[in-house]
Amino acid sequence: MADKKKKPHRLKARQPRGFVDRSPEDIRATDAMMAKIKEVYERYGFDPVETPMFEYTDALGKFLPDTDRPNAGVFSLQDDDEQWMSLRYDLTAPLARHFAQNINELQTPYRTYRAGWVFRNEKPGPGRFRQFMQFDADTVGAPGPSADAEMCMMMADTMEALGLEGQFLVRVNSRKVLDGILDAIGLAGEQYVSSRLTVLRSLDKFDRVGLTGVKRLLMDGRVDESGDFTKGAGLDAKQTELLLSLLKDQSFAFLLLPDNLAIHESKTYEEYVENFEPDDLSDFVDNEEDAIIEPSDLDEWNWMKRIFVDSEATNRDASIKYLNSLEFNKFAVNRKFRQGIRELIEIIQLCNSGGYSALKIRPDVTCVRGLEYYTGAVYECELTFPVTNEKGEEVVFGSVAGGGRYDGLVKRFTGQDIPATGFSIGVSRLMTALKNLGKLEASETVAPVVVCVMDRDTEALADYQKMVQELRNAGIRSEMYQGNPKQFGKQLQYADRRGSPIAVIAGSEERANGKVQIKDLIEGARMAEEITDNEEWRAMRPAQQEIDRADLVAKVTEILARQKADREA
Amino acid sequence: MADKKKKPHRLKARQPRGFVDRSPEDIRATDAMMAKIKEVYERYGFDPVETPMFEYTDALGKFLPDTDRPNAGVFSLQDDDEQWMSLRYDLTAPLARHFAQNINELQTPYRTYRAGWVFRNEKPGPGRFRQFMQFDADTVGAPGPSADAEMCMMMADTMEALGLEGQFLVRVNSRKVLDGILDAIGLAGEQYVSSRLTVLRSLDKFDRVGLTGVKRLLMDGRVDESGDFTKGAGLDAKQTELLLSLLKDQSFAFLLLPDNLAIHESKTYEEYVENFEPDDLSDFVDNEEDAIIEPSDLDEWNWMKRIFVDSEATNRDASIKYLNSLEFNKFAVNRKFRQGIRELIEIIQLCNSGGYSALKIRPDVTCVRGLEYYTGAVYECELTFPVTNEKGEEVVFGSVAGGGRYDGLVKRFTGQDIPATGFSIGVSRLMTALKNLGKLEASETVAPVVVCVMDRDTEALADYQKMVQELRNAGIRSEMYQGNPKQFGKQLQYADRRGSPIAVIAGSEERANGKVQIKDLIEGARMAEEITDNEEWRAMRPAQQEIDRADLVAKVTEILARQKADREA
Repeated sequence: MADKKKKPHRLKARQPRGFVDRSPEDIRATDAMMAKIKEVYERYGFDPVETPMFEYTDALGKFLPDTDRPNAGVFSLQDDDEQWMSLRYDLTAPLARHFAQNINELQTPYRTYRAGWVFRNEKPGPGRFRQFMQFDADTVGAPGPSADAEMCMMMADTMEALGLEGQFLVRVNSRKVLDGILDAIGLAGEQYVSSRLTVLRSLDKFDRVGLTGVKRLLMDGRVDESGDFTKGAGLDAKQTELLLSLLKDQSFAFLLLPDNLAIHESKTYEEYVENFEPDDLSDFVDNEEDAIIEPSDLDEWNWMKRIFVDSEATNRDASIKYLNSLEFNKFAVNRKFRQGIRELIEIIQLCNSGGYSALKIRPDVTCVRGLEYYTGAVYECELTFPVTNEKGEEVVFGSVAGGGRYDGLVKRFTGQDIPATGFSIGVSRLMTALKNLGKLEASETVAPVVVCVMDRDTEALADYQKMVQELRNAGIRSEMYQGNPKQFGKQLQYADRRGSPIAVIAGSEERANGKVQIKDLIEGARMAEEITDNEEWRAMRPAQQEIDRADLVAKVTEILARQKADREA
Repeated sequence: MADKKKKPHRLKARQPRGFVDRSPEDIRATDAMMAKIKEVYERYGFDPVETPMFEYTDALGKFLPDTDRPNAGVFSLQDDDEQWMSLRYDLTAPLARHFAQNINELQTPYRTYRAGWVFRNEKPGPGRFRQFMQFDADTVGAPGPSADAEMCMMMADTMEALGLEGQFLVRVNSRKVLDGILDAIGLAGEQYVSSRLTVLRSLDKFDRVGLTGVKRLLMDGRVDESGDFTKGAGLDAKQTELLLSLLKDQSFAFLLLPDNLAIHESKTYEEYVENFEPDDLSDFVDNEEDAIIEPSDLDEWNWMKRIFVDSEATNRDASIKYLNSLEFNKFAVNRKFRQGIRELIEIIQLCNSGGYSALKIRPDVTCVRGLEYYTGAVYECELTFPVTNEKGEEVVFGSVAGGGRYDGLVKRFTGQDIPATGFSIGVSRLMTALKNLGKLEASETVAPVVVCVMDRDTEALADYQKMVQELRNAGIRSEMYQGNPKQFGKQLQYADRRGSPIAVIAGSEERANGKVQIKDLIEGARMAEEITDNEEWRAMRPAQQEIDRADLVAKVTEILARQKADREA
């Protein structure tokens, strides 16, 4: 018999590691935050578009987030027809697929935004989840640095819309600059693709693992706190030292751009070369003998360097020092590097025209980004206010958004060059930041009025139902108590703990006389816990009044208005 | 060398079957619709809560949606630690896990809502996706039919909030009623668990496969249009005929409840039994000899039947006919059946008290629901307006929401009885319905003002950037053209196709004179397509005016206001 079979094994209620539920407070705060972000993106002329959670694994392609893990950091499974599908690990790769698929219908530049869950099959940890929300904006079909500049400005405006004025910094760099540096230290060519990515990811971990950690990652590898080993990039000491100097010396040229970057009097590069006097910058470069610069490269490089330093820079001296100390000139031999620097200059100039000083947006060679698919500008928004980390050290809060130019992603499908640029906001991380700063607005949602169930007969229930219906029809958030109504004290306790503003109470006596009791729970909160049954309640009746049944809606409205005024006072 | 390696295989940009992208229009319309739904749920005193996409497969448990498919209709994969995880197939099973996990912290009744994506590893088809959005509301810890009644009323209010007044019907039934019927046709006991579920799912497919289809599914099985075979429940002809009569005869008792159900003068069952006169209903039951009713069951059953028919029913005669013809009395011997009927009566009475007539909410024995976990009331909201199906037949639009009572889901984790009830709205399907009815509000989003890029030098770009920035700072949606600026005609074409209201145009001449051209694109839309280059544009200048640069924001604001007034006129 069914009743006699042995008790089934009881399941433990738990989530898979790295997955979490969201509370009402979190959802309401996130929704409010996302509405503000959306408002900025819309103002910038972006429209929403969304892709599904699954893509064919080959569409996500070789740009997987964690090549050290099974499935390279993504969740994958095989479909009925044997094709592999993966849950998206970001919102960029799917956008590239979407654009390629609809290329004939879409207007370019294609300016869109989207918020959505992404998945990483990575090791979860504190604040590190396997499902998290990103909020992205992208422009596809925009070749120029002006589109990158726009993204940087939109990042800045977003932070300001969230009340973070003066507490953020958008840092810009270029993969071309980084690639040039890697070429210069001997990692040029196809055979170093994987090493280069490992190096970039190592540099990108500076925030988390510090200088020593990055050093290990660049050389032989690193064992983390949990004992897991991450393989290193296998660089030698000299290569490593050169890269570490990028991280150590935070006072390099990019950081020292003046707040109001004056455009050099020579408007274009061509004009500059025409008017170039070789001695122009000789006093800035005192170790020229170390630099392996071809004479043909020197003109262009010097012109660019001049844009950096020949202006009203507040830290001109430090800037010059950096240009020398870091053997920066050595990199100038590399075309990619110079191209990156030129694009960076254009981005910064446009941001300046838009009114964004170096206090908001500035170039920074330590801005790297961990994903492989970036081909040009990369940018990151960091929150600069101090927090205490788990080791008790005071650090800046760090990155909450980042992105860059990915000119190659769409091409994989179309064969055509399709330039594109965009960024993601890490929604949970930004929420945490706002929480830390007390910038989350308190929810304006008032808990519901609770209509208590004093009698359980059909007629009484019908009466309570009518009450709650009248309240709802008047737009008042309310509910009839739906638990076991036997213990009245439990109903009041429920209403109290829920934060309900008012309880409506009508026993058979009140109902017979066309009356109803209204209890102001904000006022009576303290006393309610002591009451355990109907008798006791009848004796005490704290913070409550008897009114005519017909006045229910009017009276509840009045009390709610009074409570609201009290809250706002 | 990198450049010499052979061209990579070009990927086809496509989505896995059954997954789709969402357009801006769809996203905006869905957001507007969901905001209205949320407003209703909040008014009813529900709070948001959310769970992640993944659950441990055992937490989803045996209640999988499609036992005929690999993985029983869900997407599953094995975690690093060998445990199986699945993407949620609905929002109910995860809520049960969430509640069980947090049972000590949560107030009951626990009233929550959530919108989210769910996944079915099923055969996709037209309008049938493998990822779709549900919008759920649930009350956990609410034992009584009043909680089910509240769900029915909330469904009805939601439909009205969406402008569907008079075009929907909430149908209520009880799994207990259905179980009673199945018991009565010989499917009682543990050994028929699987058959019962197959029967319920077959009945639930009535809308899609019709009477013949259901008949096949109840007996030997059915081959669908695509040639796929679905195994049948293996019932015999007599059992099948009896069940089909439920579907055939839409005029059975439940449907015939009066709009204003008068509560029988005998208030409670106990009072009724006390005053029962055996002849009371004799004229309603003329084939009593066929009914296998125990004398002890007859009293209660007759009392309930009297509630049905002894009132101002408009279809009293048909109702009586049904009660006889369907051998309904036969089922009265079954306690589950009677309990279900009693709960249904209480639900209907409460809905009546709330002002919901049988035109909005009514019992209907053909309301089944396909999932196994329901234990009591089941309810469904159907849209009643006619649409033409793919066969050219006129049918009602059908179900857009459904749910029921699932008292057993939480118990699997806690061992305690935790009653719960709730429903899901099929968001895409409801959207389709609103689209069909023309009830989707046109988006109020105006496309951005486009600042054209006439010159590409640094100074010009800086000027355009300043313009767009001024417009945005004034709250005007705007963008600088980010595509290749060489062909001016393409810029205007872009603005036109995007639906931009205004293009801002400033060549070197205008900029030198402190002027700017403003083109009203709504007015000039037709003419723009003919223009291909700067020269031609300079000659024609359709629908545009030259203004002082300083007046840019004021003038754009003025034109936008005029366009808005035109739209609203």
